[in-house]
Amino acid sequence: MDTKIVIVGAGYAGILTAKKLANRFRKNKGVSITIIDKNPFHTMLTELHEVAAGRVDESGIRISLKRVFAGRDVDVRQDLVTEIDFEKRTVIGSNERYEYDYLVLCAGSKPTYFGVSGAEEHAYTLWSYEDAILLKDRIPDMFRKAAGELDEEEKKRLLTFHVVGAGFTGVEMAGELAEYVPVLCDRYEIERELVSISVIDVLDRTVPTLPPKLSAKVERRLKKMGVRVLLNTRVVSIGEDFIEFGNGEDTTHERTGTVIWAAGIEAADITEKAAEDLEAAGRGRIKVDQYLRSVKDERVYVIGDNMHYIPPGEEHPVPQVVENCEHSAATAAHNIVCAVTGKGEMKVYKPSFHGIMVSLGGRYGVAHVGFPNRKFSLPSFLAMFVKHFINMVYFVQLLGWNKIFSYMKKEFFTIRHCRSFVGGHLSNRTPSFLLMPLRVWLGAVWVFEGIKKILEGWFVSPKLEGFFNGANQWYNNILNGTGGTADGASGATPAAADAESAAT
Amino acid sequence: MDTKIVIVGAGYAGILTAKKLANRFRKNKGVSITIIDKNPFHTMLTELHEVAAGRVDESGIRISLKRVFAGRDVDVRQDLVTEIDFEKRTVIGSNERYEYDYLVLCAGSKPTYFGVSGAEEHAYTLWSYEDAILLKDRIPDMFRKAAGELDEEEKKRLLTFHVVGAGFTGVEMAGELAEYVPVLCDRYEIERELVSISVIDVLDRTVPTLPPKLSAKVERRLKKMGVRVLLNTRVVSIGEDFIEFGNGEDTTHERTGTVIWAAGIEAADITEKAAEDLEAAGRGRIKVDQYLRSVKDERVYVIGDNMHYIPPGEEHPVPQVVENCEHSAATAAHNIVCAVTGKGEMKVYKPSFHGIMVSLGGRYGVAHVGFPNRKFSLPSFLAMFVKHFINMVYFVQLLGWNKIFSYMKKEFFTIRHCRSFVGGHLSNRTPSFLLMPLRVWLGAVWVFEGIKKILEGWFVSPKLEGFFNGANQWYNNILNGTGGTADGASGATPAAADAESAAT
Repeated sequence: MDTKIVIVGAGYAGILTAKKLANRFRKNKGVSITIIDKNPFHTMLTELHEVAAGRVDESGIRISLKRVFAGRDVDVRQDLVTEIDFEKRTVIGSNERYEYDYLVLCAGSKPTYFGVSGAEEHAYTLWSYEDAILLKDRIPDMFRKAAGELDEEEKKRLLTFHVVGAGFTGVEMAGELAEYVPVLCDRYEIERELVSISVIDVLDRTVPTLPPKLSAKVERRLKKMGVRVLLNTRVVSIGEDFIEFGNGEDTTHERTGTVIWAAGIEAADITEKAAEDLEAAGRGRIKVDQYLRSVKDERVYVIGDNMHYIPPGEEHPVPQVVENCEHSAATAAHNIVCAVTGKGEMKVYKPSFHGIMVSLGGRYGVAHVGFPNRKFSLPSFLAMFVKHFINMVYFVQLLGWNKIFSYMKKEFFTIRHCRSFVGGHLSNRTPSFLLMPLRVWLGAVWVFEGIKKILEGWFVSPKLEGFFNGANQWYNNILNGTGGTADGASGATPAAADAESAAT
Repeated sequence: MDTKIVIVGAGYAGILTAKKLANRFRKNKGVSITIIDKNPFHTMLTELHEVAAGRVDESGIRISLKRVFAGRDVDVRQDLVTEIDFEKRTVIGSNERYEYDYLVLCAGSKPTYFGVSGAEEHAYTLWSYEDAILLKDRIPDMFRKAAGELDEEEKKRLLTFHVVGAGFTGVEMAGELAEYVPVLCDRYEIERELVSISVIDVLDRTVPTLPPKLSAKVERRLKKMGVRVLLNTRVVSIGEDFIEFGNGEDTTHERTGTVIWAAGIEAADITEKAAEDLEAAGRGRIKVDQYLRSVKDERVYVIGDNMHYIPPGEEHPVPQVVENCEHSAATAAHNIVCAVTGKGEMKVYKPSFHGIMVSLGGRYGVAHVGFPNRKFSLPSFLAMFVKHFINMVYFVQLLGWNKIFSYMKKEFFTIRHCRSFVGGHLSNRTPSFLLMPLRVWLGAVWVFEGIKKILEGWFVSPKLEGFFNGANQWYNNILNGTGGTADGASGATPAAADAESAAT
């Protein structure tokens, strides 16, 4: 009898689970693995700000699911899951129905607006591929409109950006934007003074998951980049062309061109709906046991952003970060294999996080990394290095070593406006026509050398004998002993023979 | 007393007039020249389709007015002209008022919808910089949405494009789009069969200004590129997601994602308004005499798209093409100089057009060029060559020779997706990091050679003597006669001296 495993969501957690399961069940034809996502691609959510601010091409954060699962026995379905029937063990998509024996739920998150009036209608978010694309078009659009605007007040309004939320997403977006602004000012002949970027948060420091010292560093850097940082400030409402915020007593009404909402997330719709049948906890997440199974239905594994789990001895549930997706995927995959095969022992989920990294633009970052009990801060260059290193480790798991080169190319070497942390030269691109003389010269030399070799008789007698013989000898030397003594020995043999013949 | 010349509109005609006037009045401080445009840049309208379809970067069609008039005595004002008071000789902008003694009106055109219901609200146009940018974002957006769309019918609708009008703009846009589609299909993993491009026109052939044979060639090429060409077909109405068209009896209702309106133009608002005071003719244009002055007010010169002039012996008014802008600008500038200085004789406008070129994508074009009485068709490659050559001639007039290199770079060598008529290799770009080994090697050789030269004593005694002496001799040879005899002479002199001393 067949066992059907269905994974809902092809985010960080979903993809890794599917890959691990496919590896373990490679030779077991009785197990089928299906992964369902509404997009035909996986999005690297942590890099959205890079696309939104025009630094990295959009193809850099989109990974084709076909490519991820090429050559693997995973059925990729493009569908939108609208309901899950836990009684009948059926996932209901808008196109199809999928029966399952084991379900992995990792549908990810969506922005939450905390009831701020007008936020959902008027603010831009940064939580999906679509969001990044909208902002990528919106930001230069504002500069373009401002360039053609005759009214000075309106021009300033168009050039005003408010980022709500000073967590990861907020500060990374603001930093990226601040770095983009000079490029845009130059392109559209606009003075830098007319542009204003603000970051607003209700808390008293930026990225509260960092230690206070690093939060202060982030704040200083943002200010240095020309970003106004408003802390202890609550956003009251957002309109088509304004934002209202206050610090308790006073409320400020400011005209604005673009509000980017980066203030918080909650579970995706389908997870919230599923949580009604299972056990919900904290903003639509689902409570799981130590093996990452729903506490209500042990055939349902909930991982990544969708899980709510407080490890023994801890106070807070595991955070909604990429590292949690990676670790929970590994544990869930292992436990599903145990459940399906009946062999081995289930693992208890013991996440161990190695820290967080925040990048402000393409050339500056702060990091607080290490092991659970011992973390340290890294200087900017190393922080950026670690950030990219972690992405690369992720890629190896996802796509194999091949992807590394294309990631490096996209993140380091083809960055626009030289905004790469490895510096201007390496991220620049040379029009190939400038290399024409070099290529023509190399080609000419190649043809000339070729003709010479043909005239020397390369078509009629083997000419690489010496070369391959040299290689043969080199291998023999290695096989027969060290190079030096082998040489001595081979040299000595005829001499000894000579001596022998002389003696006779 | 000062003479004030005001030019309304910085299109092809306005810029050339301003430049020519600035040159002629360079030393005459009594004449001031003001040019007014609502944008701080000039747009190359004939290349809009290239930006709309993502082939050329938007900076390739935008030329900063500051740069155009750098070092010239022309006052560039960014303003929107709302009214002209011909009695008081005053141009009224939304920011300022400008008095004039001579006015040059060349405010260009805008699309006209011939009363087709829904066209203005729902169709995209291709008549300004903004239009091109909107389409540039819209087209990939449709593919992106289609990639994430689960409903097959809706997916097809998103991927349906209708171009209304098979004149220049229409067929160039359709050709460009057809060339762009495979790139987008590849990027978003969409099958080419799902995409549909149609061109609709009420006339019976494409680009009616071409001879019938070339029209047929354009039609064949479009069909080969996968474009459906519907001739003798009138568009009845356009909605948010549909278009209705018919050929007299039947009406077809088709679902569509994007309608691009390229069916016709009329004079800009300000010209239409001015035409009420002066004499209007044909879609808001203004009637001019043979010297290009309004027939009602001889201080007002009307040129480019805004003029309505039927040359003696002709039936039709001069066409609204770039060549007409260039020629009328030259005539108007000359006649204004005559009027201001009271010297010389005014020229009668005698336009002579050298033909038209239509490009279908970046690699194919047809052209019908030559002299008024003798025109011939050009094969595709030559047609593209002529098209670019004409643009370059225009640039030389506009910006001097400097701009040529940047035009060539943008149009031939940095084209995206290798869609350049000079071919894939030349338009490709190499990430500079690939050249690192070469640069490091060249640097090492340079340092090594430098050290060697220092050790040879280059710091203590002059080593380039031989080199410069060689040059000295070469110059002397040229100055004293041909190389051969000079050498002989200088060789002969000591010999002769020797002979002399021997003889004595």
